[in-house]
Parts: sequence; C-alpha cells; structure tokens
Amino acid sequence: MREVYVIGVGMTRFGKYPDLWVEDLGREACIAALKDAALSPKEIQAGYCGTSNTGRITGQRILKEVGITGIEITNVENACTGGSTAFRQGYIAVGCGLYDCAIILGVDKMYGSGGLIPPNLEDLEGILGRTLPGRYAMAARRHMYEFGTTLEQLALISVKNHRNGVLNPYAQFQKECSLEEVLSSRMVAEPLTLLQCCPVGDGAAALILGSKKMSKRNPKHAIRIGATTVLSGEFQTTSTDLTKGNQVIKAANMAYEQFGGGPQDIDICELHDAFTIGELIHYENLGFCPKGEGGRFIEERKSEIGGEVAVNPSGGLLSRGHPLGATGVAQFVEVVWQLRGEAGKRQVPGAKVGMTQTVGGATSEIGPASCSVNILYR
Amino acid sequence: MREVYVIGVGMTRFGKYPDLWVEDLGREACIAALKDAALSPKEIQAGYCGTSNTGRITGQRILKEVGITGIEITNVENACTGGSTAFRQGYIAVGCGLYDCAIILGVDKMYGSGGLIPPNLEDLEGILGRTLPGRYAMAARRHMYEFGTTLEQLALISVKNHRNGVLNPYAQFQKECSLEEVLSSRMVAEPLTLLQCCPVGDGAAALILGSKKMSKRNPKHAIRIGATTVLSGEFQTTSTDLTKGNQVIKAANMAYEQFGGGPQDIDICELHDAFTIGELIHYENLGFCPKGEGGRFIEERKSEIGGEVAVNPSGGLLSRGHPLGATGVAQFVEVVWQLRGEAGKRQVPGAKVGMTQTVGGATSEIGPASCSVNILYR
Repeated sequence: MREVYVIGVGMTRFGKYPDLWVEDLGREACIAALKDAALSPKEIQAGYCGTSNTGRITGQRILKEVGITGIEITNVENACTGGSTAFRQGYIAVGCGLYDCAIILGVDKMYGSGGLIPPNLEDLEGILGRTLPGRYAMAARRHMYEFGTTLEQLALISVKNHRNGVLNPYAQFQKECSLEEVLSSRMVAEPLTLLQCCPVGDGAAALILGSKKMSKRNPKHAIRIGATTVLSGEFQTTSTDLTKGNQVIKAANMAYEQFGGGPQDIDICELHDAFTIGELIHYENLGFCPKGEGGRFIEERKSEIGGEVAVNPSGGLLSRGHPLGATGVAQFVEVVWQLRGEAGKRQVPGAKVGMTQTVGGATSEIGPASCSVNILYR
Repeated sequence: MREVYVIGVGMTRFGKYPDLWVEDLGREACIAALKDAALSPKEIQAGYCGTSNTGRITGQRILKEVGITGIEITNVENACTGGSTAFRQGYIAVGCGLYDCAIILGVDKMYGSGGLIPPNLEDLEGILGRTLPGRYAMAARRHMYEFGTTLEQLALISVKNHRNGVLNPYAQFQKECSLEEVLSSRMVAEPLTLLQCCPVGDGAAALILGSKKMSKRNPKHAIRIGATTVLSGEFQTTSTDLTKGNQVIKAANMAYEQFGGGPQDIDICELHDAFTIGELIHYENLGFCPKGEGGRFIEERKSEIGGEVAVNPSGGLLSRGHPLGATGVAQFVEVVWQLRGEAGKRQVPGAKVGMTQTVGGATSEIGPASCSVNILYR
C-alpha cells in the first residue's frame, strides 16, 4: 500500500433532525469536506458511504446532490462499524493506486425510525432481552465483580465525555452533567443508567482521502494514515469473558504493527463508548492500561484532555452522539481536527498520533460482529 | 492489479422460501462454493456480502454458520448491483495483494418482505408512479417509436430466457412460455406484460476469489478475471434518451479496455433483464449490435445459445429469478460454469470469454444509480 492521507473533513452537528432528509445531512457534510480540501466535486474519483438505516443507494442519492456522479460509489453496512468500514474500503482503493482521491461518507437517521438496533428475528436470546444494553450491563457487572470496578468509576466516563461535548460545537449534547446526575438518571439496564447510554440521533460526516501527490496541494492540512483494520465475526462461544474483546485486542495489535508503534504513542483516541462500560473496557483492550485497571484509569483522570491519552475529546458517542454509519467517519474527522490543531476549546495540546475505534453489531452468537481500529498521524 | 481468479462457485436454486432464513440460503451457497474450491473455511481471509433486504451484518451472520469468523467482512449495498459491487471490492482486495483468498456472497429475501424496490419518500416522481416498471415501460415505448421495435420482439426475449431457464436446475422458473402466453399475460406497465417482468424471489450465490498461487491448486477449475467495473450516479437530467444507458456504455468500454478486447470476443453474457426491454437495450449498450437494432438481434436469434453471443443462458433475471443482492454473484457463477464447460444442458459450446452486467436502483434524478460490467475468461 502506498501512502494515503486525509486531505479534507467535514460534518454536521449530530442531533435530532425530524425535518431533514438523509440527503440534507449528507450534503452538508460532503460540501464541508470538499471545501476543507479545496477540491471540486469533479476531482473525486470514488465514493464510499457507511450507513445502516437510510434505505438503498444512499451514497448515490447524497453525492449527486453535491455534483459527484459517474464514478464508482459503494454503500457499506457493518452496523456501528459502517463508517469505519467505508473508510477502510476507500483506503484500500487509494492505497493500491486505483484512485488518487476518494470521498468517504457516513450518515444515518436514527431518530423517528425505531432508533435502536433490534435483534434479528431468528435471534431468540435477543428477542428475550439480550439486546445491546443488556449485554453491556452484564459486562459491567462482571467487570465490577472481577476487578472491583465501581459505579462511580463507570459514571465518571459519562461525566468526562459530557464535559468534552460542551467544548464541541458538533456534539448532540452540549451540557455537562455531574456524577450524581449520571448515577441518579433513569435505570436502563442495571447498573447502566440513562446518562451512561449513547443517545439516538441523526447526522453525517465526510472526509476525503488522497494520495501523496494530492496531499502536496496543502501539506500542512494533510494527515497521514498509519493503520486501518476491519475485523469481524468472533464467536461469542469462544470468548465467554465479557470483560474483554478478543477481536478488538487483535485489531489493535494489527494496527500497532502496521503503524510500527504501541499504545504509548497514542495522544488521542476516539473510541466506541456506546455505553460507559464500553469505554472502560476499551482502555484495556487497546492497551492504554492493564486488564482490570480501566476503573482506576478514568478515576486517575488519565483519559481526560491533558491526561495520558485524551479519550473521546469530541464527547464520544455518549455526548457527540451516535448515528450508526456516521460515527466511524466522525471519529476520523475529530482526530484530523485534533492533529491539525484545529479542535478549538477541546484541543489536545501537541497531539501527533490519533486512534479511532468502533465495534458494531452483535448477535447472541457473535460479539462484536465487527470492529475497526485505525491510526492517523502527522 | 495482479491476476485474480474465481476458484470456486455455488448457489441455491432461486425461488420463494418463506420457511427459510437468510442464513439458511447463504450457508447453502457458501458451503457449495467452499466445496467446489476444495477449501477449508479457515483458508478464507476476507468476505464481501452483497445484499439489500436482509438486515444488518448479514455477511457476518451467514459466514459464522460455515465457520468463517475473525476476518475482515464487509456488507455492500448497491441495489441490484450489490452482488457485483461485493465482487468488485473482493477483486480489489485480492488484486492489490492484501489477501490471497476472499469469499463473495450475494443474498436476498424478497418474498414476503414487500418484495419490490419502493421509491424513496422524498422521491415525488417515484411516489406518483415513476417506479422501475414505469421507467422501463417508457423506455420500451420510446424504443418502439424510434426504431420500430415490436411487441413481439420484446416478448421473444422472455420466450428465450424462459426456455434457457428450463435447462437450469437453479432457476426459479423451469417452465417454457410461448410468444402468445407472454403477450397475453397480465399487463403490468404498458407495453410490459407480467411475463416480461422478473419475479420476486429469494436466493443466495457465492464464489471464491484467489490469487494466481491459489488458482494453481486446480488450474483447470480456475477462471481468470479480465475486467471489473462499478459505475454510479449518472444524472437522469443529463441523459434524457431513455433508449440508451450512457453509464452502461461507459462501463462496458472500460471493461473492454481492461480486458483488451471488444464485444466480438464475448461468447456468453449474463445481463440485467429485469424487464425484457432491459435486455434489448443492453444488447446495444454492450455493443453486441448497433443502436436501434436490438429488436432485430433477438428476432434473428443472435442472442440464443448457439447464436453470436449467448445472452442469459441461465434464464436471466426473468427466469432464474432476481433476489437483488444475489443476482450479480449468480451471474458470475453461471459464467464460471459455462467457461468450465459444466453448464449441463444449457452449455454454450466452446465458451471462452464471458461477461456479466447489472444495473441497480434509480431515483427520479439518477438512472441507473449503479451499474457494473465484468469480464471473465479462460
């Protein structure tokens, strides 16, 4: 693979937009990314759209609105990993020399469309209640039992991410919440309260990938890709330990190997905090702290802006929001802003290496169905 | 891109399977392809699943059933071009050297799930009736007006494809129909009668792509890929001529250039006969006959098995059936069987070069939203 760069980014504010079409959201994000890259729509040679909930040929419907037509366009679905998977496909196409310039789009409208990820009809355990909140809640209870993780430690993750979200004009929630508010909010799946679960929302994010040649138009603007991975389909039955993600660990190791570095090199990380326990376990999966010490890691403020690794400076899924297909792309957008030093009030000083991580979907037998770990650097 | 081969194929019979899950259909096709390639599931390094109608993480749900887990799996949606687009992604991944072996899966369950492609809510013309049958009907009327194409010529395409389907044990319909039966069947969208429209059905098809090294395990079995294309998003407003497909013509030219040949080299072609007029226009789009002469081409039996180019020897969408995401992959399966000389009673004698072609989706402003033209050879 040759060098590939992110040369432009853009996104909508995430939120509830009952009066907007998918096309409206996607168009706004794509125009922002094109403008940021200072490219004409005619220069885009391929498009990849990650989405779950927006009907057929979503990428074509959106890209025609910005004048991008007559090229190879592929819609990608991988549940919450959809945006990251679209990125991976675009990375391969540009990296192998097929194209010099591709647009990656992530978009979803969850509000008013049922919102959640329903279990498949043939998934008996899912129908009986083993949905995502239930699975995460079991993981939380097990982590508390095994490692003494506390309710307060879990809740601190929500406090941190809501605090970061206040600094992000693109976040769905821009309101701080206290430890007490998190703990006393409505119980969703014991021990996870409402403010420990990501919201339902809509939004779009877009970015433009370019070859080295393309990156030279504005070298200070371009952020290089150090690693991309998509990994799928670990059997739940071969991973009965709810407190770790074998697949995420494997993907992280693949990413570190591609990049030629390790967890100590990561300055910022946008990771999959669909529920607070998710972020806590991913500290361990990604190697930011040893297994079992995720609770202490947040308590000692090591994942804050200014800590060892700034985790979810954007506010994460908990505060920036989580329109499924858009999330993976929005993570890249945030990392690019951070690495360029353009993240405003939430800027992580001197950030040079950033990671994104998503996990997507789960059936009673697969968990997670899909995950992705990626590294960008300048 | 290095050499890439199809080294294994398999499919279910297409039909209506109200009692089977998507996983049942997909599993059958994947097991057949693995068996045909004489590969263990553990040797598969990546998976690509084309689907439209089967819910989230379909590829993961199916591939775990055959023991393919822990690898990169990507679900692709491009309406009727979904299977072909999954093939294209797998081709790029193997062709660029990322993987030596990938499984491509196409699956859909249309029966009982609404079946048709509904217009998007924001597509006013679609809601008012400009759906796919209506669009194809307008194209038929225009072709008749411009070039003197007759109702009988259109109907002959259905007669041919149903005759071919009788010879294909995997076809949804295995029953011949006469010219009179086609013409007198119920009117769907004037002048297109019921037997000129593809049926609603379910099914799955799978194939395995391998590098040159992989192909050497069974060289006589391996069929080489000569060209792959996916092209999307032609504005309807810039192509007001309903009797030709600018995008399909462009994709075909790209494919001929990649392959280093032309229409005269194609022995068999599996193309997108969602409606009879589709096949007729594609004779012209793909260069099998000059513009306007599609009617004469079928009348002079040039597209029959034994003619200049055997078009849809499988029975095509009209008779083999059209579960959206499965169709593109099933076309490759048929071409591989034909090029290996394994197509039984419908074998095209001495076939050496085969083409597949799909078009997918359409909004009032894009038509088609996606298309794909591919060439295989031995």
